Amino acid sequence: MTARDLKELSRADALRLLASAPIGRIVFTRHALPAVRPVNHIVVDGHIVIRSDPGTVISAEVAPSGAVVAFEADELDVEERLGWSVIVTGVARLVEDPEEAASYRARLIPWLAGDRDQVIRIRAEMVTGFELVPAASPNGSSSV
Amino acid sequence: MTARDLKELSRADALRLLASAPIGRIVFTRHALPAVRPVNHIVVDGHIVIRSDPGTVISAEVAPSGAVVAFEADELDVEERLGWSVIVTGVARLVEDPEEAASYRARLIPWLAGDRDQVIRIRAEMVTGFELVPAASPNGSSSV
Repeated sequence: MTARDLKELSRADALRLLASAPIGRIVFTRHALPAVRPVNHIVVDGHIVIRSDPGTVISAEVAPSGAVVAFEADELDVEERLGWSVIVTGVARLVEDPEEAASYRARLIPWLAGDRDQVIRIRAEMVTGFELVPAASPNGSSSV
Repeated sequence: MTARDLKELSRADALRLLASAPIGRIVFTRHALPAVRPVNHIVVDGHIVIRSDPGTVISAEVAPSGAVVAFEADELDVEERLGWSVIVTGVARLVEDPEEAASYRARLIPWLAGDRDQVIRIRAEMVTGFELVPAASPNGSSSV
């Protein structure tokens, strides 16, 4: 199996791929410890939108404080060792406007049972992404 | 599509599933911001083992300081909305013993070109995992 290099994606390509993925992982800090949860999402106007239950850590602690979170999605083919990964970093906030929240809810059906009525929007302030490409040389660069 | 509930996995089941996944995501804090990188891994004696290049953030900053990291892997079927996710939290450390590092390197081939000679071991101190199961009722519990 040929080794792979990382090829950086443009912001536009990274957001397009992120929008094509049904599932991502929200990454945040809780009690000074790194935490992560998988969740389904949509991308709207450069924002990532997810739904959450009021009782969850993300709804009750992360979004109300306007915390900075990361959001990662990837599509990696284990056989071919090809694919991409995109990481967005930005402030997470509850969508407070009822009409706006309703319009997002109509487009984003949660996988999990329960109301999950809260809508959280993450501003894509920093966007980094790469795709895996065949390495130019066995000692090619790598930067993860 | 029926909604899903989360069913908690035992520690043993969670570690078994984590070991079955070729790829996970290491989650850490950098400059007080949440950060995440996909990486291939193995599970050995309740530890997660990854390889890294000396120049990377994980090798140069995270592991030398014995930082607490999270490691997430999942296998989620978008069509069926079934699958699992496992999250481990624990201290990450460089494996300093040359023989031990060599034995891990023999079992874990990095996808990326370059030496990636550093071996990092994450102690699975906290292990949480769930699988998605059909919801008992439309307002079933959910806790992500």
